[in-house]
Amino acid sequence: VRVDSVDFYYLSMPEITLDVDGSQDALLVRITAGGYVGWGECEASPLVSIAAFVTPPSHGACQPVSASVLHQQLDSPADISRISALVQRNSMDLLQAPHTYSGIDMALWDVLGKARGVPVWKLLGYSCSYPKTPYASLLFGETPDETFIRVRTEVAKGFRAVKLGWAGFGEGTVKRDDDQLAAARDAIGTDGILLVDAGQIWREDVGAAADRLESLDRHQVTWIEEPFLPDAYSAYSALARQSSRVRVAGGESSHNARMAINLMRYGDIGFVQIDCGRIGGLGEAKQVADYAVSAGVTYVNHTFTSNLALSASLQPFAGLENHSLCEYPAEPKRLARDISPSTIRIDPDGCVRAPDSPGLGVEVDLDALVQYMVPVELRVGGHDILKASLTV
Amino acid sequence: VRVDSVDFYYLSMPEITLDVDGSQDALLVRITAGGYVGWGECEASPLVSIAAFVTPPSHGACQPVSASVLHQQLDSPADISRISALVQRNSMDLLQAPHTYSGIDMALWDVLGKARGVPVWKLLGYSCSYPKTPYASLLFGETPDETFIRVRTEVAKGFRAVKLGWAGFGEGTVKRDDDQLAAARDAIGTDGILLVDAGQIWREDVGAAADRLESLDRHQVTWIEEPFLPDAYSAYSALARQSSRVRVAGGESSHNARMAINLMRYGDIGFVQIDCGRIGGLGEAKQVADYAVSAGVTYVNHTFTSNLALSASLQPFAGLENHSLCEYPAEPKRLARDISPSTIRIDPDGCVRAPDSPGLGVEVDLDALVQYMVPVELRVGGHDILKASLTV
Repeated sequence: VRVDSVDFYYLSMPEITLDVDGSQDALLVRITAGGYVGWGECEASPLVSIAAFVTPPSHGACQPVSASVLHQQLDSPADISRISALVQRNSMDLLQAPHTYSGIDMALWDVLGKARGVPVWKLLGYSCSYPKTPYASLLFGETPDETFIRVRTEVAKGFRAVKLGWAGFGEGTVKRDDDQLAAARDAIGTDGILLVDAGQIWREDVGAAADRLESLDRHQVTWIEEPFLPDAYSAYSALARQSSRVRVAGGESSHNARMAINLMRYGDIGFVQIDCGRIGGLGEAKQVADYAVSAGVTYVNHTFTSNLALSASLQPFAGLENHSLCEYPAEPKRLARDISPSTIRIDPDGCVRAPDSPGLGVEVDLDALVQYMVPVELRVGGHDILKASLTV
Repeated sequence: VRVDSVDFYYLSMPEITLDVDGSQDALLVRITAGGYVGWGECEASPLVSIAAFVTPPSHGACQPVSASVLHQQLDSPADISRISALVQRNSMDLLQAPHTYSGIDMALWDVLGKARGVPVWKLLGYSCSYPKTPYASLLFGETPDETFIRVRTEVAKGFRAVKLGWAGFGEGTVKRDDDQLAAARDAIGTDGILLVDAGQIWREDVGAAADRLESLDRHQVTWIEEPFLPDAYSAYSALARQSSRVRVAGGESSHNARMAINLMRYGDIGFVQIDCGRIGGLGEAKQVADYAVSAGVTYVNHTFTSNLALSASLQPFAGLENHSLCEYPAEPKRLARDISPSTIRIDPDGCVRAPDSPGLGVEVDLDALVQYMVPVELRVGGHDILKASLTV
């Protein structure tokens, strides 16, 4: 089959706050090819990502993403690799391109899986999909008491693992952070898995991060995530070498496989976290998973939005039995829930797994999304390059 | 003073070809602050970069670039560092942001230099601006004969150094590339400096690049540029270790200082090439120059467009006497020439240098640019977020 059409849906909650909650808007991608329909989701700025698909070219190595996708042959995983390489070459100087292409790539795999009647993780070379232990991804409360309540709420739902981040963590005193960690550990109990997301707060300041290691260790935190700017490899490595038990995690900002591999190779991280809505799709993510296995690093998905994004992000490590943690969007905005209601449930045994149904195994209910749709119109040089046509 | 306004000018030649000639369009940035006017230029997709400035926010770490720039205090280099860090934090998840901010950053330095009556290189800490040997940056001809003529044309203008790239180099046989190099060396003479740009053609294939080393060495090529994908550090390092005299160059794709520093630290390059219109501006570029000095790597600008971009890209290494090569756009499209006619000339001694006049020392003639202006209109959710107001 050939790629017949690529459509973007910019969805948004009525109000966007400046909380670091990425589920407040969404950019869905729908691809049709030979009668099949595939879906993907960019974890990226909707307007800017759409612009990168339709922009006029600047020159041969700064072409719109559309130039490398529309009308391409799509019959095998090799075709998707070829399209991905085309985008990397033709849009070399278009920085936003990997974010735009990530959702497209998911939709291409979804089409291919549906056409062959197999789940995407089989197309990626796995023979089965292992259960993963979901962790609830939360923002810290404003106070330790609030953090305690948030964690308890998730524990009550059955979560045995929780990640907390942002809301000032790392910006104040070590004591303030320690109080937050104590509340979280208290709430989850001694057997619970506690993870912390530093959200790049220390930039390249290894000392500021190392000052928290004793506290993180005492509260048995499994990993400290994104302590530094994403490519500050030497800072990552220095912290990893100073830590005895707490591992360093990172990688969500990677917009190609090599960035994540470099963070493992030079940054000595213990967990590599990949968002398939940013890294350039499932093929790039699978390369990261393969390297992680060879390097003894644990692969984890990064997902804060819909079940569509979650399914996509599970595929590249679905078949890795020992890579068993999974970021699970515990409290997404209703927009993210409405994209694909309850598709990936938590099993009675407390686990989730990538769906067994063909493609990504997640259906999108467009009718339920009309209320969130944001029309976009782009005119360049007096010509419409995108009309307000992004509706059902 | 405060940043009162930021305006973008999308300029384009009447026709855009798929040649890898980045001077076919341009994105200028004009900033007004306390009565001063500063100019900058993004080496980036105009539409997508503009969208990154005006887009609605997605969440706290995916805000438009405008949120971190408009109305900011601007009285010192520290203010520009602060604004740059704000953009990195508030637009962390907006991939295009560094490209958008690059032109803004140039314009901020231009304002500050004009306000203080000093050239930007003084604000960056240099006491003088050393002469640089310009090299003419060209695309290979379709045939060796055509390449010969192109190089001879530049030699006749006085250039003693020439760089050639693209047009199929590295895609065919070693013999084909060798013929091109022989023609180029023949044209420039035994004393001329010959540089080759591989334009990422070998992705991560060290063997394909190494196959050309004997030929590159025999034709006394000073550097082989961007042999691989920009963050394929281990490939860069492997090639550098296999080469005796030919050095490896790279770095133009860096969109922050750390990427370029990583390429030096892990990729063992001999020349680091920085485009101030991509790396996030002059402060990031100066960090790269400082590291290059400490690491024994030679810093070179990457510039293929206007004299405004050239002046900006000269500032971060203006005061480094031994870093003496300079990419000089020898045959830009008339659009790029019209942005700032003949501001940075080649001296009678064959050298160029960063201007001594305040700021970037380059005036922009808007009247001459009206013919190239491309109006952009963006409507999101039924609201104009950018009207077709980007005119004189």
